[in-house]
This record gives sequence, C-alpha cells and structure tokens, in this order.
Amino acid sequence: MAMMGDAVVLLSGGVDSTTTAALAVGRGFELCALTVDYGQRHAVELAAAERVAAALGVKRHVLQRIDLRVFGGSALTDSIEVPIDRDSIAAGDDIPVTYVPARNTIFLAHALAFAESIGGFDIFIGANAVDYSGYPDCRPAFVEKFEELANLATSAGVRGAGRFRIHAPLIEMTKAEIIAEGVRLGVDYGLTHSCYVPTNAGDACGRCDSCVLRRKGFAEAGLADPIRYA
Amino acid sequence: MAMMGDAVVLLSGGVDSTTTAALAVGRGFELCALTVDYGQRHAVELAAAERVAAALGVKRHVLQRIDLRVFGGSALTDSIEVPIDRDSIAAGDDIPVTYVPARNTIFLAHALAFAESIGGFDIFIGANAVDYSGYPDCRPAFVEKFEELANLATSAGVRGAGRFRIHAPLIEMTKAEIIAEGVRLGVDYGLTHSCYVPTNAGDACGRCDSCVLRRKGFAEAGLADPIRYA
Repeated sequence: MAMMGDAVVLLSGGVDSTTTAALAVGRGFELCALTVDYGQRHAVELAAAERVAAALGVKRHVLQRIDLRVFGGSALTDSIEVPIDRDSIAAGDDIPVTYVPARNTIFLAHALAFAESIGGFDIFIGANAVDYSGYPDCRPAFVEKFEELANLATSAGVRGAGRFRIHAPLIEMTKAEIIAEGVRLGVDYGLTHSCYVPTNAGDACGRCDSCVLRRKGFAEAGLADPIRYA
Repeated sequence: MAMMGDAVVLLSGGVDSTTTAALAVGRGFELCALTVDYGQRHAVELAAAERVAAALGVKRHVLQRIDLRVFGGSALTDSIEVPIDRDSIAAGDDIPVTYVPARNTIFLAHALAFAESIGGFDIFIGANAVDYSGYPDCRPAFVEKFEELANLATSAGVRGAGRFRIHAPLIEMTKAEIIAEGVRLGVDYGLTHSCYVPTNAGDACGRCDSCVLRRKGFAEAGLADPIRYA
C-alpha cells in the first residue's frame, strides 16, 4: 500500500465518521483523529470515538472541547425536544431541528489547524448529503468552498508546500451503501454509536432520527446491526 | 442613526478589535462581542476585552474557551520564545512565529455560529493585512472567501433570509490610521491591551512585536499611548 502521509479525520464514533476513517486507512493515510465535544448530550459518543480510534490504529487522537451551548440554537446542544419515530428526516427543504449553526465549519476549521500543525494536507469528514439533505454544511458545494478557503487561510497552503484537500468520500452515498462499504473494509460497527438520546447504560433508543436512519441503512444493506437497542 | 440590526464582533481587547467594534457601533449595529480564549499566555487580554465591551455598551459578551494548544504550532500557544526588539515584524514573505494555524478560520467559524444563533448576518473582525502582512488569514482574499463559505454553510444563508457579510474595515489601514480613526470615534485606548508577554501586574513589555507595532502606530499618529509600559 502506498504511503499517503498524515491525514486528519473528524471522528465522532458514529457510522459515517467511522466508515470515513476506515476508507482513509484503506487509501494509505496515517490517521490523526479529531473528536469534538461540543456540549452534546451524551458522553457515550466520546467513548465510541475512542474505541474506533483504537481499532483503526490511529497514531494520535485529540479531543477538542468546545461548548457550542454558549451560542444556543439546536436540539443537540439546547433543551429542544429531539424528534422520534419519524420516517422521513428532512422532507423537502426543511432543515432539521437538530441542525447546529455552523457546526461543520467549526469542525473543519479545527481539523485544518490540526492538519497544519502536523504538516498534513488531507482532511477527512463523514459529511453526507443524501440522508440529511437538510443540513447546508453537508453538501458538496460547502465542502469544495471550505477546501478553497483552507488553501488561502494557512501558511502551508499559501506557501504552496502542498494543497489541502477536504475529502468527503460518503457525501453522495446512502446509509446502506456506507454500511456495505464499511463491512467490506472490515469495520466493526459494534464499536460505533449513533443515538441522540441513549439510555444511561449506553443503549440506543432506536427511535430518534439518527437511530431510524441507522436501522434503515442496515436493513437496506441486508445486514444485522450489532449494537444494542433499549 | 439608522438601526442596522445585530452584529457579532470578534473582540480580543487589543487596538484593532476595539477600533473595529467602535466602527461597527458607529455604523449603527447593535453588538454582540465574542472573545475567544484559545489558551494564549495571559488572562490580562481577557480583562481588556471585558472593559472594552462594557465601554462600548455591547448587548451580549460571550467568552468561548478553545484550547488550541492541543494542536501545537505557535509561539502564542506553545513555549516557543516570543521575539522582542524587532523593527520589522514580517519582512518579505516571512510568516511570523506568532502565527497560529487556522486561527482566524476558527475565530470566524465560531463568530458565524454566534451570528446565526442570534439571527444576525454581520460579523466584524479586526484583521489587518498591512502591519502583519505575513499572516495568510489577515488578507482580503481570505475574508472574501470566508464570506462566500458563510453563505453556503448555514441555514440562514442558504434559505436566503439574509446575506452574511464579513466586515474587516481595518484590513488596508496602517496602525497609525487605525489609532487616529479610533480616537476620532472616542475610543479610550487606555482600556486596551496588546502585549504578548505582560508583567504579572499587567503592564506591557514594550518590546514584543505587538508592543513595537502599537508604539510605532501611536508615534506615527502623533498621539500618546495611554497604557503603562514596564
């Protein structure tokens, strides 16, 4: 396998970021993982990110704590009710209430700082435009614009030592395609976590948007979901 | 004075961000100030930001703590020596050792989240391309690119409820021009803080790049600097 150098992967410990990390490893990158704790409700997610990072053999795993609750504005950081039992997550042009203002911009900005600090030029993000079409910062146009910005914003980019690349390999894939690809790469989805509102024991609720999407993905891929549901 | 609505200003409590905030007030904006503590060496700067915010009558002042030391790579966040007694800060194409990877990208990303959360579309940043020509993320091209990104990255931008504007009113001004403009607007520079390495009592060193630039600016503007030097 060709050595591609160091890359930064944004790793939440969910299905998408875990599959993205596995794809990056498959392409020959040495990974540094960045997990952002932005004041979301459950620490279970952070534990999942640690398990996944260890399983994928990342060389460095950084946890960045940022409290996005200081700004307000989302079900994941405020006390707005997380919707459950919805078949369709983002029908039409609706933006889900779980939208967090500028979240992926913040995540990628931190990933860019990390990448430049380690001398890397490749950043992987599990953004996906298919299932969550309502999130503006999960669309190809956003990712492409951030890549342009990265090359203007940094010493490494301006000096021309290399060109920053923002890789969003899942962006046009369905959840079923993502899971099938991950299984092909040997991902153990039993390590991952998706639920917005897990039980105290860490079991997934099975009914929030994130659980609904995940279960639908496994069902459509014809695979069993190895995690426990309450 | 026309009411321009709410704006977010990035406020460090230094000369540039304070002047920028005063300009925004002068243009009729109601200000929300965002101060980012990114693990820099001195809390004196944070106290200055609070004094300035109070003096300018900002309606909300948010302190966001982000530890950029987790990534490494700069004199301001690492233990690299801060240079002193230099006449020229960034001669030629050199990028100062005080460069922090992706700092303004991170700052603007957080400011964008804040702006969207409060329903504002205007973000003010005291970026300056003249004195610190070595910082890639202080150039007009960077600011313009971030503005494009902001309008792709957010629900408010994509919905067309308004258009995000990144204002960098100082970007082409010299330090002397900035200070003269601030004095015209009634800014009390005695409230501000610039030094990278202040004494324990909070006095400025007078010799680091930031102090040298500040003193040169006051001298060229023909004005007395009201702060205390060690």
